[in-house]
Amino acid sequence: MTRTPEFFMRAALKEAAKAELMDEVPVGAVVVLDNKIIARGHNLREKSQDVSAHAEIIALRKANKKVHSWRLENADIYVTIEPCAMCAGAILWSRIRHVYFGAKEPKGGALVSSTHLYEVSGINHRPEVTGGLLEDECSAIISGYFQKKRKKM
Amino acid sequence: MTRTPEFFMRAALKEAAKAELMDEVPVGAVVVLDNKIIARGHNLREKSQDVSAHAEIIALRKANKKVHSWRLENADIYVTIEPCAMCAGAILWSRIRHVYFGAKEPKGGALVSSTHLYEVSGINHRPEVTGGLLEDECSAIISGYFQKKRKKM
Repeated sequence: MTRTPEFFMRAALKEAAKAELMDEVPVGAVVVLDNKIIARGHNLREKSQDVSAHAEIIALRKANKKVHSWRLENADIYVTIEPCAMCAGAILWSRIRHVYFGAKEPKGGALVSSTHLYEVSGINHRPEVTGGLLEDECSAIISGYFQKKRKKM
Repeated sequence: MTRTPEFFMRAALKEAAKAELMDEVPVGAVVVLDNKIIARGHNLREKSQDVSAHAEIIALRKANKKVHSWRLENADIYVTIEPCAMCAGAILWSRIRHVYFGAKEPKGGALVSSTHLYEVSGINHRPEVTGGLLEDECSAIISGYFQKKRKKM
């Protein structure tokens, strides 16, 4: 049975919910190969105090371990929020086939918002990009998180 | 005694040489805080099969551990080659004060070559950028590496 993009984005949303439980900005990602999730990640920047610990980087590194290779040519990544330049760059280097994201990130989003990284990059490989997948749910979890934060302050 | 930028770039060049000994593309980086090197990194992509294992990411993650924080506000980074989007993005997020690089990277360089990431970014923080530091040495080690590679092939 071929799973839908929505199925995989729901798995990424579950990852985002895990981040929220740890009081991290709720972003989640999964890497999919041959119709199966091979790696999951959620934002862990505060807990790890590691600047690179975004959901996508964590998921990509786990996927690298899983396939024993930095190359993820036939894999896709699903991420709840438009990737930043760091993550979009890592996705590009890993030769991921297709990036699906949920909500746009107007400030730091590097695919369609602050910059269009894959259009300006001098690297030959260029992943396909699909935005707006389960956009409302992906947007709600992050805006809900920041609303609660502001109330506490 | 205040050390010069050249002193720190020489330390980054030593890191690049370590990468070359391991048959990795020779790029090196050091993170400097209060006139001291607090972290060093060299490219380890092939050995680790980790797509994020560029010199800069390795050095930043080590620096994060050293200061127990993802924030590196008063630190500078020295890298032998112009950072790619992934690394330039990580440097931006870490709030590094000043990026010094040696040689330009016409294809993937994200500071002054393929894109000017810090000019298009929607993030408030913007590191200072100085390119061309020990440019000839930084350029020579990488072009020498690729010349040897081509001869072998």
